[in-house]
Amino acid sequence: MEQVYVTGVGMTKFGTLDETITELAKSAALEAIRDSNALDAKFDYVLVGSQNPDEFTGVGHLSTLITDHLGLVPAGATRVETGPSAGSSAFEEAVALVKSGLAQLVLVIGVEKMSGIDRGAASKILAKMISIDSEAKLGGTPAALAALVARRYMHDYGLSRDDLSLIPVKAHKNGAKNPLAHFREEIALEKVSASKMVADPLTLYDCSPTSDGAASVIVASSKAAKTLGRTDDSVKVLAVGHATDYHAVQHRPCLTSLNATVSAAGKAFKMARLRPEDIDVCELHDAFSILELIDMEDVGLVKPGHAIDLVKQGETAIGGRIPVNTTGGLKARGHPTGATGVAQIRDVALQIRGKAPAGLQVKSPEFALTHNIGGFGNNMVVCIFGR
Amino acid sequence: MEQVYVTGVGMTKFGTLDETITELAKSAALEAIRDSNALDAKFDYVLVGSQNPDEFTGVGHLSTLITDHLGLVPAGATRVETGPSAGSSAFEEAVALVKSGLAQLVLVIGVEKMSGIDRGAASKILAKMISIDSEAKLGGTPAALAALVARRYMHDYGLSRDDLSLIPVKAHKNGAKNPLAHFREEIALEKVSASKMVADPLTLYDCSPTSDGAASVIVASSKAAKTLGRTDDSVKVLAVGHATDYHAVQHRPCLTSLNATVSAAGKAFKMARLRPEDIDVCELHDAFSILELIDMEDVGLVKPGHAIDLVKQGETAIGGRIPVNTTGGLKARGHPTGATGVAQIRDVALQIRGKAPAGLQVKSPEFALTHNIGGFGNNMVVCIFGR
Repeated sequence: MEQVYVTGVGMTKFGTLDETITELAKSAALEAIRDSNALDAKFDYVLVGSQNPDEFTGVGHLSTLITDHLGLVPAGATRVETGPSAGSSAFEEAVALVKSGLAQLVLVIGVEKMSGIDRGAASKILAKMISIDSEAKLGGTPAALAALVARRYMHDYGLSRDDLSLIPVKAHKNGAKNPLAHFREEIALEKVSASKMVADPLTLYDCSPTSDGAASVIVASSKAAKTLGRTDDSVKVLAVGHATDYHAVQHRPCLTSLNATVSAAGKAFKMARLRPEDIDVCELHDAFSILELIDMEDVGLVKPGHAIDLVKQGETAIGGRIPVNTTGGLKARGHPTGATGVAQIRDVALQIRGKAPAGLQVKSPEFALTHNIGGFGNNMVVCIFGR
Repeated sequence: MEQVYVTGVGMTKFGTLDETITELAKSAALEAIRDSNALDAKFDYVLVGSQNPDEFTGVGHLSTLITDHLGLVPAGATRVETGPSAGSSAFEEAVALVKSGLAQLVLVIGVEKMSGIDRGAASKILAKMISIDSEAKLGGTPAALAALVARRYMHDYGLSRDDLSLIPVKAHKNGAKNPLAHFREEIALEKVSASKMVADPLTLYDCSPTSDGAASVIVASSKAAKTLGRTDDSVKVLAVGHATDYHAVQHRPCLTSLNATVSAAGKAFKMARLRPEDIDVCELHDAFSILELIDMEDVGLVKPGHAIDLVKQGETAIGGRIPVNTTGGLKARGHPTGATGVAQIRDVALQIRGKAPAGLQVKSPEFALTHNIGGFGNNMVVCIFGR
């Protein structure tokens, strides 16, 4: 089977930005293209991961539009959507296209522009991820579901409010060193529990923001990577695992574990022929603080109920045994939904290349993992990368 | 490279229907699953092609929702969107997943529910396909652009109004025999030019309708096809070609040819190692009557300006040398945008299997082609199938 490489990466600042969705996408893509030495290369496909550009921005037909703006016509162009895992799913399609031989060189862009409409309208769009009949109709929101999960986790495993606060504190500590992060200030532990309540027990600092931003990676066959002169500094794609769970939380057997992560990670580790303990650095989908703990457990980094032990021991910080969300995660890097998965891949690719921002580089990581959630815990993509 | 098969197909009636988008998708999928002997099979992925379910129906997160409703959790689930070629693009991703070895068995569904909102709102959603800055802002619509193209084609090649009317007349003649078609009445030639003007010279009967409907096909590896016992009645996927053109019509060098079709068809024929004259039956994207002529020429079935000769000679009718749109095309079968590409694939698969509806079967076709347009002539997918 064809070995697939990430030959270049790019990313805009994440935050509340002036640029349009097309400008953001172009900016990230051009950086990735330059990073790949691919300014003169022929791209076979442009894959765009974006959750809902039509409703967030009024702009439709995004994949064609971006391909045209980038001067990449007549490349095939496709938008891929799986909720907030759209970026990873676009990456997955790129990997499949190259691995199948249908393509040699593919540009992947994840992008979302969420700040152009008012907060209420944005919340309504985001609420479409959850079940209309079983959740949204009854007033459910993603934050409310996360709160339910957090309460149950606290009950089952004795997690305290201050324990949970360690997650956003670490996120902001890393984000402060990431020049592209949405939030670049460290926060004190007390600030988390003292901040505005969103859905008891989750406060403002337990929740990732809505952001604008784009990220991009180039996916290439070994032949294309060689042609670009990028074999030395390229990152190997070792696996992509993708799995769903029941749409509504109430239909799942357990609140404190997300089966789709277990399935997707299981597929990915099998494909990569690796075990969770082989992973040296990872980006996990911490849309809400509680999810970082659950993700660690479901990916297999630690036994259920014990993720917080690793956090307390500093093992998930830079310099620890398994650094998690080294660039701030969704909480501090920001969460332009469709961009997040591609940003995660970009960030671990930089880690493997030894090019992470100052103060965030993990020592010589050999294997890295990304984990991206679509919907509320029901459409997961796990990717594994190596040198 | 792994040979990929279509092992089963399904389709709902197209038209103005009572069913929800989820019900339509389920219904088509279950028929395809049964047709594949796959009721007990494990699907690796569910790929959903849909242009804009969020705005047409208010339903989001469609791929997860449908996968859950079909009982196919934990299959990976992805929605793919390229405007009205979304169905073909979803099929393309399925082919890539199977060809790459990332999947053995994939369910593809194309679906759109367009009748639930008023006509003005639907038009606004569809207008997002065209360029905001260069076309929509100035009052442009897809029909207006098609009218521009038709006028130029008439000027360049001397096509008459009555010549053009032969296309919808043929579409309705075939649609009348297709039990699932949106329109099942034959129409007289005079009716086309006498019907309501939409965008001069195009009348109501030159334009495909907005429809509700779903179609589904199962994409399988040879191993999976064998396990299902479907090797005898399966259809081989010989090629998928995908290409874009400049978003705005005014940026293209020519009005009477669509470069993206030329590119996509060129890629597909190269991959299939076939020539246009090898094709025995095809489904071409006739969203507007003029496009059927242009599609025939761009795919390479006939020289520019001469498509109408084949039509007049009856060569594109059932029994002719190269039957086009045997089941009524977008005009009469209907055009639930995201479903159209999958319906085309379903229809040519039935042709190859000798199972087309009574009166529509082409004699022993060996090779078939589908051609699906996204946007106004800028995101094309061409697929080639064989026995």
